[in-house]
Amino acid sequence: MNQSISVSLTPSELSPECDLHQACSVIIDVLRATSVMATAGQSGVGRMTTCENVHAAAQLADQTPIRPLLCGERHCKPIDGFDLGNSPAEYTPERVADRDLVLTTTNGTRAIHAAMRSRRLLAASFLNLNATVAAVRSEPHLQIVCAGTNGQISFEDVLLAGAIIDRLDPPALQDSAPSGHLDDSARIAWSAWRQADVNTRPLGQSLAQSLGGRNLIEAGYEADLQRCAQVSTIDGTIERVDPGEAVFEFRRRG
Amino acid sequence: MNQSISVSLTPSELSPECDLHQACSVIIDVLRATSVMATAGQSGVGRMTTCENVHAAAQLADQTPIRPLLCGERHCKPIDGFDLGNSPAEYTPERVADRDLVLTTTNGTRAIHAAMRSRRLLAASFLNLNATVAAVRSEPHLQIVCAGTNGQISFEDVLLAGAIIDRLDPPALQDSAPSGHLDDSARIAWSAWRQADVNTRPLGQSLAQSLGGRNLIEAGYEADLQRCAQVSTIDGTIERVDPGEAVFEFRRRG
Repeated sequence: MNQSISVSLTPSELSPECDLHQACSVIIDVLRATSVMATAGQSGVGRMTTCENVHAAAQLADQTPIRPLLCGERHCKPIDGFDLGNSPAEYTPERVADRDLVLTTTNGTRAIHAAMRSRRLLAASFLNLNATVAAVRSEPHLQIVCAGTNGQISFEDVLLAGAIIDRLDPPALQDSAPSGHLDDSARIAWSAWRQADVNTRPLGQSLAQSLGGRNLIEAGYEADLQRCAQVSTIDGTIERVDPGEAVFEFRRRG
Repeated sequence: MNQSISVSLTPSELSPECDLHQACSVIIDVLRATSVMATAGQSGVGRMTTCENVHAAAQLADQTPIRPLLCGERHCKPIDGFDLGNSPAEYTPERVADRDLVLTTTNGTRAIHAAMRSRRLLAASFLNLNATVAAVRSEPHLQIVCAGTNGQISFEDVLLAGAIIDRLDPPALQDSAPSGHLDDSARIAWSAWRQADVNTRPLGQSLAQSLGGRNLIEAGYEADLQRCAQVSTIDGTIERVDPGEAVFEFRRRG
């Protein structure tokens, strides 16, 4: 299969001219928005709607007949008046099963909205790596979007982009001839993953060294690093329900 | 020595807020501006002045008492009315020895100007890798700026950034503990280099797969890939002469 894979190391690399309309986009915010979404999915959440800012999230929650849970963070911290923060540990079945939620985070939801015009849209974390890879294996044009941290490239998101590419194992990786099927950022992300892998360093350690990881440790959420460093413990995808709407659901595999 | 190393994978990652005034910046445009500068240096060129646009370059040449050589490219091609293009093959001692030159290129000279406010400024290529590394080894804050290709990340520049970091061998690379001495892009660039290295693929092949390499091949300059893929064949640095001026000279080592 001739699969083309592009990676944006930050959402701003997705220029407005970038033609996403044919693409399946995979949004990555390992620490922690997309890890939270996978965890909530596993815990039986209903629909998850992402909003770019706090005000829009609160307004949406107020206008919804059955009030959803208001969730998210700013600068790693819970938001005043919200029900849940952005730690996967909070998203237990007791808290979220059968509840809809509205989520706004500093980087993750912005990346989602930057890629909104994609034909298909998924949110990926290490937690649901294998399920995500299986779901996008047949996509002819895959666009991976790393959320980064405050506009900067963040190592942990690039690592997961590389892990997805590695598991897809596109022919361009074996090719010694020139090949346009992986763009340069995709090649770079794959190298980052392989090199981290070759070091056989626990994934949690690599996350701790990243910009997002250092910020989390500083904010007192070190335990979340290990929670977000579990690989493929959740067997389902987080997928947008309808084009044009930032509403996601968990789809269990099989 | 506690050396901090930051990498900008494109010049636009250098935000206007980035404090370069204390930094030594190393500009990389492997294909081909900084390879041309090293080659010209080896061939005995005088001073090299970089200009951001064609008009400014032509004007500067006209205003200089002893007319310098006008050099550069747009979209890989020589510029009408200029003396030399952007292929290292043109920069022979016969053409450039003891001549000053004015250079304007699509990506390389723009990257130089983006980092102009740096305390110290060098232009690096694979050709003078070891000499560049020796010259920056004692710099406490090193900023490496990849020129990229038309605003996009280009693999060949990231590879050289990684090679420089690998040869500097900063303690942060061995550290398994969190360390702020390499930023995330520096870690990513180092991974790209190590992974290319581990593959034991000739460097020219890696360059051919990059965005810059594919563009060059398409424009008919495939032979330049091999010219720019020679490692440390030139034993000197390309260094800015005075702060605030985009004037460079070749400094032979030793």
